[in-house]
Amino acid sequence: MSVDLPFSRVTIIGSGLIGTSIGLALSRLGLEVSMRDQDARAQGIAQALVGTQTHEISESELVISAVPLSAFSSVIKLLQESTFVGVFIDVASVKTKPVLEVLASQLERANFLPTHPMAGREVGGAESARADLFEGRPWIIDSSDSNLEAKSSGVALIEALGAYVIDIPAAAHDQAIALVSHLPQLVSSLLARQLAGKPEEWLGLAGAGLRDTTRIAASDPGLWKEIISANSAAIAPLLQKLSSDLNALILNLTDENHISEFISKGQVGRASIPGKHGGKAREYTFLPIVIEDKPGQLAAIFDECAKVSVNIEDLAIEHSPGQETGLITLAVSASDSVKLREHLVSQGWDVHSPRS
Amino acid sequence: MSVDLPFSRVTIIGSGLIGTSIGLALSRLGLEVSMRDQDARAQGIAQALVGTQTHEISESELVISAVPLSAFSSVIKLLQESTFVGVFIDVASVKTKPVLEVLASQLERANFLPTHPMAGREVGGAESARADLFEGRPWIIDSSDSNLEAKSSGVALIEALGAYVIDIPAAAHDQAIALVSHLPQLVSSLLARQLAGKPEEWLGLAGAGLRDTTRIAASDPGLWKEIISANSAAIAPLLQKLSSDLNALILNLTDENHISEFISKGQVGRASIPGKHGGKAREYTFLPIVIEDKPGQLAAIFDECAKVSVNIEDLAIEHSPGQETGLITLAVSASDSVKLREHLVSQGWDVHSPRS
Repeated sequence: MSVDLPFSRVTIIGSGLIGTSIGLALSRLGLEVSMRDQDARAQGIAQALVGTQTHEISESELVISAVPLSAFSSVIKLLQESTFVGVFIDVASVKTKPVLEVLASQLERANFLPTHPMAGREVGGAESARADLFEGRPWIIDSSDSNLEAKSSGVALIEALGAYVIDIPAAAHDQAIALVSHLPQLVSSLLARQLAGKPEEWLGLAGAGLRDTTRIAASDPGLWKEIISANSAAIAPLLQKLSSDLNALILNLTDENHISEFISKGQVGRASIPGKHGGKAREYTFLPIVIEDKPGQLAAIFDECAKVSVNIEDLAIEHSPGQETGLITLAVSASDSVKLREHLVSQGWDVHSPRS
Repeated sequence: MSVDLPFSRVTIIGSGLIGTSIGLALSRLGLEVSMRDQDARAQGIAQALVGTQTHEISESELVISAVPLSAFSSVIKLLQESTFVGVFIDVASVKTKPVLEVLASQLERANFLPTHPMAGREVGGAESARADLFEGRPWIIDSSDSNLEAKSSGVALIEALGAYVIDIPAAAHDQAIALVSHLPQLVSSLLARQLAGKPEEWLGLAGAGLRDTTRIAASDPGLWKEIISANSAAIAPLLQKLSSDLNALILNLTDENHISEFISKGQVGRASIPGKHGGKAREYTFLPIVIEDKPGQLAAIFDECAKVSVNIEDLAIEHSPGQETGLITLAVSASDSVKLREHLVSQGWDVHSPRS
């Protein structure tokens, strides 16, 4: 296999999931990839998986830093010591901090392209790496202070890995990600911690609402402490605003007009999240179906959907405590909902009234 | 059809989704049900659906109030004027407030059974009613200050409708529901309103985390303003605690130890939500699969699951902005995950590494 890339010898520093996945993909494209890690075991696994020979950093045409935020300074040190003068990129989920670190170093800022691949939520090291991890995913870059060589190398890399480029200045990236990723994480954790130590019979009454809002509270503290603290400048004003809205709510908790406006503003915010595929937010119709909780029920329902060519946009599964029957809610387009409901009812399914 | 119920003539005041659904179910069981509503149109539809003759309130052996919280006082007035002296129950989602209203009235408190059917999230009036709405759902009662006749009538009603009884004092109910239902609603709305007016390209980066945490922010303000204000006494201390945790976070946003502990406490709280079926919280393994976004893909996957008798406990569908490929994550038991992954891979599916 051969592709037209502006580099052929790549060093990847950091042999975790992201670094090793990049290594695997580049190696399959016929490039010479050197995997490094300060942890010898991780480096060994990554080298075994990627399976190419090692070369010196100074011999590389591209260096990719795929280390945790806190280790980026050691990568800079390594590059300075190796007298590397080529293009280098990073893949950290916060962008202003690494940019400042490069500016403060002896490395050429224009040779650096800050990037952030948005490649799913899986955790795990080199063992979990996959060459197709970035397939179809957005990969953010900030090309505003990079030279043409750095930008074209980064874009070529991203497209060779099957991802697509979104070019946003680092500061805007950090603000955007603070809003759509870091703030929800903190709010979900904030809510979930209120549950700790509460009576089990109370928590047994939890429905889909509580489960959904606290799902990401199960995330890894080790990963998040670095991200939050590195992006604290962008997160702080969002939390301040949240706190002030919260305090206004507390003061007006018996004022129905205030509560109604509070919930309404939440509706507006929720509706401003674009639908899937980056298009405008779509209106779905939600079709509730009561199913028996046993293998094959979901398969059978999806079979029925396929038969009438209905595309499931999203779905939720809810279970009653102490019961073996489940409620599944399918999100479909309004027109599909009519067709699907008619079909499912004719097949004897327990379909309830749709809501939009 | 005949069942052994301690009442045969029932008046239901309030012809919305809940009241009409109860009416439909009781009518099918052969009871004489009188549907009422101060809105003539709603009452007309409900009577047409339920299809039984009307009788006077004073002739009823059971009266069910299925009106919004704010209208309960008018139901009390109606009962007093009709010289009704039998058993009556309500179905409001907050319990202390109706109890206090009955205590302040001339009605006999012991004849009243406060209840709360937890019957899904659908909205809509009499038109959306279904006889099986309560099938398999929990239905909370507070029998502590009710006489035996009121309790046995309520329990018989609930079981006849296919629901099951959870007996909790009204004050504990309101505290529990404040925690597992009202607090998540307010937090989700609080988070979602922060999104309003933010750049569209920022919101386009939203992933499953933001979508999940803000899903219930789409709820109806008219419904929630009454619930929140009626249960403000139980909600206020929860919001105070949330606010104080939030302020501590804001003050320590660059302290990695504080953030790590903050996220960890959220993990503990999240883990304390019991798993489905009211059992202990179960550990699932999450299996990510990349699928093409077209009809039939989900059906095909669930077919494969059924073939190897794997039960899907939960699932999430994620889509990349601007792309037509989707990531589906199946939650299954650890042992099922091994079996399922092997099978799917052998069938050519694009299964990624599981995480637990």
